Amino acid sequence: MKTRAAVALGAGKPLEVMEVDLEGPKAGEVLVEIKATGVCHTDAFTLSGDDPEGAFPAILGHEGAGVVVETGPGVTGLVPGDHVIPLYTPECRECDFCLNPKTNLCQAIRETQGQGVMPDGSSRFSLDGKPLLHYMGCSTFSNYTVLPEISLAKVRKDAPFEKICYIGCGVTTGIGAVAFTMNVEAGATVAVFGLGGIGLNVVQGARMVGASRIIGVDLNPEREALGRQFGMTEFVNPNEVDDIVGHLVEITGGGVDYSFECIGNVNVMRQALESCHKGWGQSCIVGVAGAGKEISTRPFQLVTGRSWRGTAFGGARGRTDVPRIVDWYMDGRINIDDLITHTMPLDDINKAFDLMHSGESIRSVVLY
Amino acid sequence: MKTRAAVALGAGKPLEVMEVDLEGPKAGEVLVEIKATGVCHTDAFTLSGDDPEGAFPAILGHEGAGVVVETGPGVTGLVPGDHVIPLYTPECRECDFCLNPKTNLCQAIRETQGQGVMPDGSSRFSLDGKPLLHYMGCSTFSNYTVLPEISLAKVRKDAPFEKICYIGCGVTTGIGAVAFTMNVEAGATVAVFGLGGIGLNVVQGARMVGASRIIGVDLNPEREALGRQFGMTEFVNPNEVDDIVGHLVEITGGGVDYSFECIGNVNVMRQALESCHKGWGQSCIVGVAGAGKEISTRPFQLVTGRSWRGTAFGGARGRTDVPRIVDWYMDGRINIDDLITHTMPLDDINKAFDLMHSGESIRSVVLY
Repeated sequence: MKTRAAVALGAGKPLEVMEVDLEGPKAGEVLVEIKATGVCHTDAFTLSGDDPEGAFPAILGHEGAGVVVETGPGVTGLVPGDHVIPLYTPECRECDFCLNPKTNLCQAIRETQGQGVMPDGSSRFSLDGKPLLHYMGCSTFSNYTVLPEISLAKVRKDAPFEKICYIGCGVTTGIGAVAFTMNVEAGATVAVFGLGGIGLNVVQGARMVGASRIIGVDLNPEREALGRQFGMTEFVNPNEVDDIVGHLVEITGGGVDYSFECIGNVNVMRQALESCHKGWGQSCIVGVAGAGKEISTRPFQLVTGRSWRGTAFGGARGRTDVPRIVDWYMDGRINIDDLITHTMPLDDINKAFDLMHSGESIRSVVLY
Repeated sequence: MKTRAAVALGAGKPLEVMEVDLEGPKAGEVLVEIKATGVCHTDAFTLSGDDPEGAFPAILGHEGAGVVVETGPGVTGLVPGDHVIPLYTPECRECDFCLNPKTNLCQAIRETQGQGVMPDGSSRFSLDGKPLLHYMGCSTFSNYTVLPEISLAKVRKDAPFEKICYIGCGVTTGIGAVAFTMNVEAGATVAVFGLGGIGLNVVQGARMVGASRIIGVDLNPEREALGRQFGMTEFVNPNEVDDIVGHLVEITGGGVDYSFECIGNVNVMRQALESCHKGWGQSCIVGVAGAGKEISTRPFQLVTGRSWRGTAFGGARGRTDVPRIVDWYMDGRINIDDLITHTMPLDDINKAFDLMHSGESIRSVVLY
C-alpha cells in the first residue's frame, strides 16, 4: 500500500513529506493508522545527526496514537478497530527482563529495533523500491505504520488521539519516573531540574502521588507560571542564587528526598544528586546526555546515603502501564491538554522542530 | 583516673603507648573498660596524615568491645558490668535521621564527634594537663575510654571480646552492606571487588542471605582460598582477563545483580557499577576513596536501570543491629574467628599497622 509520511532522508535536513510504500503486517505484526503524533526532542536529536546510532533514510516519530487496521498471522491480542499507542519499549512478557519485576526494559526485539528494521530483519517501508528504516520500532511520522504486536498498548476508545499520543513518550517518561521508577511517596520533597515537557510531567507526577514540596529549577522565568499550574510549589532560578545545590539544601533543611534531572546536562545531573538529602536522598536521571558525556561526583555522596539512579520510559511496562496512564488522563488526575501547545498537519511537521528548538512549544502534535 | 593508651602524637608517627589521664563520665556518658580492639584501615588512614579531617594528638581506635565500669547522670540503658561494643555511628533514636527508616546515619553528635570531643565540647583524655582528642567517638586504643550512652551497643555476656570487637566496624560494614543497605535477596548473583577484611565479610554476608553466585575479584591469588572458605563460589583475577567488566558480564549472562566495591579505588568503583546487569543491577560503594577522588560513568549506565549506591557502617543501626550480629556470630551463622589472623598486646600495636600495610593480616586485634 501507499502511505503519506515525513521522511528523514539524511542528517541535518528537513523532513520531506511524500508518499512511500508500506508492506502489510507479517506474522506477529500489526498495521496501524496513526491519527496523531507528538514531536519529541529525541526525534530532533536523531535528525540532527548527533545521535551516534541514527541511520538514514528513515521514518522518525515514536509518540503516536492510532487505530489497528489489519493484523498479521499469530496476532492474538489485537483486532482491527482497537485503539493503540505504539511503544518504543515493548513488553513481550516472556524475556528475562519482562519476567523480572525490577525492570521495564524488554529486550525481545532490541537488536533489530536498534537497526531500524522489524524483528525479521527487514523493513516494511520503501521508496522507489529502496528500503526506508523504521525508527525506535514506531515510525509514527507516517499515516500508516507497521509494528510488532508486543509494541502496541491497547487503550480505551473514548480517549482523544491528539492528546493521548503524548503518553507514548513524554507523559509516561515524566510521570513514570516519579510513580514507577522512584516510587515517590506522599509527603516527599522533590526537586525537578528543567521545566520542559518532561520536567512538567515529573512535576504533575509528584503532585499526583502526594509530594508535599515540589521545587522547580529552570533558567527560564517564564516556566514558573506553567510549573505552578502543574503542581510546582516553589521555583528557583539558578541564575538568581549563588549556588543552586547549597540553596536547595538550605531551603529544604538538608536536601530533597528525590531529585529529577530532565535536561540531559551532566553538570546538572551532578547538581541534582548533590541536592539530595544525606542518608536517603535519591536522584533520578531522566534527561538524555550527549554522546560520550560522563557524570561524576565524590563517592562520599553515595557512601553517606544518596542513590544515583536513572529511568527509561518512566519505568513503565508499556502494555500494562500505558492504558493506566490513559485512565489517569481521562479521570482528570493528570493534565495533558495544557502541555500540547501547538498542533499542525503533517505537511507542517518541520515547524514543530522549529518551535521546539526556539523553546516556544512544550509539545507540538501532528494530526493526520 | 589513669589509663594506658596508644597515643597518636602526630601524623605519620608510630603510636606511643603511655599512661594518660581520663576524666570520669559526665551526664549521658559511660566509662568503659576496653577488653579488645581491632586495628582498621581507617585508623591507619588517619594516622598517615592523608585524612583531611584527622587531628592530633588523639587516641585512635574505633573497633572495640568491653565492659561498662561507671555511668554518668542520666544514663538509663546501661549499668556497670554490661558488655558493650562502641559505635562510631551512634543511634540516638530521636533525631530526624534515626526516625527515618531509610538511614542509619544518626546525626545527634556528628559535629562534636568530628571535632574529636565529647558532645559537651570537651575531651575526657589529657596528657600532662593538655587535652588529647577522642577519635570517631570511640578511642578504643585506650584501656579505658568514655563514650556517650547512645554510642554503645549492649551485647550478650557470653560473647568473646577478642572476636566481637570486629563487629564494631569491619564485620558490620561488610555484612550490613549486603543485608541492610542492599537487601540482597536469596538467589542473587553478587560480585565482590577486593577480598580484604571488608570484602570477605561481604562474601559471607552474601552467603548468609542465600546468594547463589558470589564472585570474588582480587589481584592477589592468595585470597582465593580464603574467599572460598567464606562462601565465594568463583574467583576472578583482573590480571588474568582482558577486561574485568566484559568478563563478568559474560560469565553472568549480562552482569551481576549486586556488586560491592571494598577497596576505595574510584576506578574499581566504576568497574563495579558497569559489571551490573542492565535493568536492575545495583552497585554499592563500601570502600573509602582518597580525599578529592571522584567517580564517573556515562549516565546511560543509570538510565538503563543500574543504581549507584553506598553504605556506611553497613547501614546498621548500632544499638539495634550490632547485638543481632553478635547473635549471628554466636549461632555460627557468620565466621569471625578465621578473619582475625593476629592478636597482640597493646605494647605491640604498631606491629598491627605493619601487618596491615604488608597485606599479611586480615585483621589484627589488640588485647588489653
